[in-house]
Amino acid sequence: MFESAELGHKIKKTDYAHQVPPVREALLQLQYDLLKRARYPVVILVAGMDGAGKSETVNLLSEWMDPRFIRVHGIREPSADEKERPEMQRFWTRLPPKGRIGVFLGSWYSGPIAERMKRVLSKAELDQRLAEIVRFEKMLTDEGALVVKFWLHLSKKKQKKRLQDLEDNPLTRWRVTQRDWDFYNQYARFCRTAEHVLRETSTAEAPWLIVEGWDTHYRGLTVGKYLLEALRRYQDESRTVRRVNLAPPLEPSIDNVDILKNLDLGLKIPKKDYAEQLEKQQGRLNLLTRKPRYGDINVVAVFEGNDAAGKGGAIRRITGALDARQYEIIPIAAPTEEERAQPYLWRFWRHIPGHGRLVIFDRSWYGRVLVERVEGFCSEYDWLRAYSEINDFEEQLARNGTVLVKFWLSIGKEEQLRRFQERENTPFKQYKITPEDWRNREKWEDYERAVCDMVERTSTELAPWTLVEANDKYYARIKILRTLCESIEAAL
Amino acid sequence: MFESAELGHKIKKTDYAHQVPPVREALLQLQYDLLKRARYPVVILVAGMDGAGKSETVNLLSEWMDPRFIRVHGIREPSADEKERPEMQRFWTRLPPKGRIGVFLGSWYSGPIAERMKRVLSKAELDQRLAEIVRFEKMLTDEGALVVKFWLHLSKKKQKKRLQDLEDNPLTRWRVTQRDWDFYNQYARFCRTAEHVLRETSTAEAPWLIVEGWDTHYRGLTVGKYLLEALRRYQDESRTVRRVNLAPPLEPSIDNVDILKNLDLGLKIPKKDYAEQLEKQQGRLNLLTRKPRYGDINVVAVFEGNDAAGKGGAIRRITGALDARQYEIIPIAAPTEEERAQPYLWRFWRHIPGHGRLVIFDRSWYGRVLVERVEGFCSEYDWLRAYSEINDFEEQLARNGTVLVKFWLSIGKEEQLRRFQERENTPFKQYKITPEDWRNREKWEDYERAVCDMVERTSTELAPWTLVEANDKYYARIKILRTLCESIEAAL
Repeated sequence: MFESAELGHKIKKTDYAHQVPPVREALLQLQYDLLKRARYPVVILVAGMDGAGKSETVNLLSEWMDPRFIRVHGIREPSADEKERPEMQRFWTRLPPKGRIGVFLGSWYSGPIAERMKRVLSKAELDQRLAEIVRFEKMLTDEGALVVKFWLHLSKKKQKKRLQDLEDNPLTRWRVTQRDWDFYNQYARFCRTAEHVLRETSTAEAPWLIVEGWDTHYRGLTVGKYLLEALRRYQDESRTVRRVNLAPPLEPSIDNVDILKNLDLGLKIPKKDYAEQLEKQQGRLNLLTRKPRYGDINVVAVFEGNDAAGKGGAIRRITGALDARQYEIIPIAAPTEEERAQPYLWRFWRHIPGHGRLVIFDRSWYGRVLVERVEGFCSEYDWLRAYSEINDFEEQLARNGTVLVKFWLSIGKEEQLRRFQERENTPFKQYKITPEDWRNREKWEDYERAVCDMVERTSTELAPWTLVEANDKYYARIKILRTLCESIEAAL
Repeated sequence: MFESAELGHKIKKTDYAHQVPPVREALLQLQYDLLKRARYPVVILVAGMDGAGKSETVNLLSEWMDPRFIRVHGIREPSADEKERPEMQRFWTRLPPKGRIGVFLGSWYSGPIAERMKRVLSKAELDQRLAEIVRFEKMLTDEGALVVKFWLHLSKKKQKKRLQDLEDNPLTRWRVTQRDWDFYNQYARFCRTAEHVLRETSTAEAPWLIVEGWDTHYRGLTVGKYLLEALRRYQDESRTVRRVNLAPPLEPSIDNVDILKNLDLGLKIPKKDYAEQLEKQQGRLNLLTRKPRYGDINVVAVFEGNDAAGKGGAIRRITGALDARQYEIIPIAAPTEEERAQPYLWRFWRHIPGHGRLVIFDRSWYGRVLVERVEGFCSEYDWLRAYSEINDFEEQLARNGTVLVKFWLSIGKEEQLRRFQERENTPFKQYKITPEDWRNREKWEDYERAVCDMVERTSTELAPWTLVEANDKYYARIKILRTLCESIEAAL
């Protein structure tokens, strides 16, 4: 695999000087075109062997293009804050928006490769991580991103020569440490690992380009020309590939029985019992958050439900038990401009809390498979792939020790009508009802089907859905508080 | 995930009798349409819990459609012959051709799930296998197949009731064995494993449909209706989804140095030394094949090279050392009708040998990234994805103990011209030269680039390419024999 990158490629200085200007000019032009159209982001990874010129390559790209619209992320060991969150968060939050270029020096590959070299990961565990990476990059390209991956390589001989040259020169001797020679002694193992990683992750969607790193002119010009070609082809939309048809999404249950219809919406708690139970559950929740071990986990609560199902009221009963410094409520409405320029999960990743914190999403990433599906805001392929993307996302949260609770608040169609009318007739509640609510109501069956599919595909042992019978607000609130407490208790 | 499949779904007998005829009629109609167009195959998996009606479901499908064009594969433990080959071979060779339906009762999921239940596989190893499955199914859908996966489920209560009902009836008591109760006692673990497997492998391309298996009418009609919808949508080509543009393939080396140009085509062996060395290497090979351990491995040798590079002569020098019962030569020309109706790797899978055998491919699966790429016989997306599909294929061979040697025989452009002319001027060699050879020659640079890309992307430690300097036939033959012997020695 590295044969071509050990041939001693070289570009003469005069040739370089001659060839660079038109490449730079074309790159700049394409960069402005990218910016103007703002149709997709460009993600560039610069990875490879130490000493093969990764950092120089990154600098070159910034130099050749307009640095205002290119963002370089030199990723090192995760910070204390980052360590409290899933590993991928620090990459998610750094993804470039549409129209921009993000260059990653150190990427989602660095961790797995380093851990495999230290034998922290078994071969199978490495493959597990690589499969996640492939799915992540597929999500990026499905979302329209251009993903370009450079792997800079040096032959063993050149690697040795590099270290010796540096050591021989008194001015540069300090740059060579024992760590460099240790790495050199592991050269063969590193190459085997790298080869395996490149093989497993070089897909049609996001291939690796292996570049010999010895000659700076060859390296820089190869990277520049490839990037140029990638940008040029990406903007030529006639090249768009057609893909085959897909299997259909789920079909509605043929006997008209489903998990929603199966709910007993008559469940109730009498008003006098409610006050007592509320007090009890809120106290229970508050005590839980004071336990020392609570400082090592975080909690994410997702609220979805029919319009007027009482999400807001239920959320207030949770926060009522807590100190305002302990939680955050993220209301999800239409995405902002900044959010629209990113893959749809981006705006949720940015709110994943650190340890000891509770985040409540009032509506969530499930919008993709609910409102966006029903209203046709995204293509069928987009919401179909969302199920596994969401499962991947939640698996990362769960693995990181997040307690994830997901509530669907279900009310009957009649009850909704009653509440809508009450809202319209009560002046201080009128702001809560909009023409959109009435329009959604007309699509009741479509939403019901989307909810059933959602639960079937995303209720997992790691992150189960709790269906809440919400015709009676008291019952719903107590059930939610109790479920939340039980989930936290199980984690502590 | 199994919530919907534990609701006690049921279809009344009268409703069933009423609803089945139109479904059967439509299914038959779509089946004939599928057959007539012969544009893609349909792969149906029926998996799930014991006792949930897998076998009955398969029978129903055969009953409802024309059984001449539907093939049921009840897959059990691999046979002795199958055990000598990579696990996936028995599925590859059973794939339905375009226009036909293949139903798998027992599939590529059975092994991984059973091994995980027996704790033969760790969690990470299971994920490794699942990632391979996802890639395999993606290859199928990329090749145009409709992949439909049914998972039949029973709740724990129903599972128990089933066993008890069978035991209570003297006529059916024999059907319940200790194995069934053992399975019942592992119910929760099985569901956890199944949930994980379904989650990791439910993709937009090939989703799972979970069906409650208790009521035969519900089960049968749900499966039939879903399949109907899947076929209907698949044949509605207006639904074809567009996908985004892709990153470009490799770019040619900018300094005009590549692994082919780097070869020293002047390498030679004098005629007098050749006879002696040939004798020595052929003897070495013959002795190797007599070693007892040779009976536990198999050898696959791939020959690719420029036209007139001497592949045939080199192959004859190998087979000259062997008994005719030990080897097989597979010449790869244009695919047959049967082969064209299958994914492109199918025709190679069928020739993978059992233990103690050597198979020589005179041209190979690399045609996809050489002639098919250069001549435009497949789309760019098709040959781009082929690199990783080929790597997956070869990794399975290597894991199964296959010694895989791959030769690229390289001659210079001048030398090729000399050989072409010689062929044209020698009556008994004229059959070897066609107008196509001259046409290929005009695309010399395109082929050279395709070869460099091929080596860069598919020369792996498990299955490296050997580039053979073939201007001198003697040198080439000896190098090939020696490399082959060394590879076999390394494996013994």
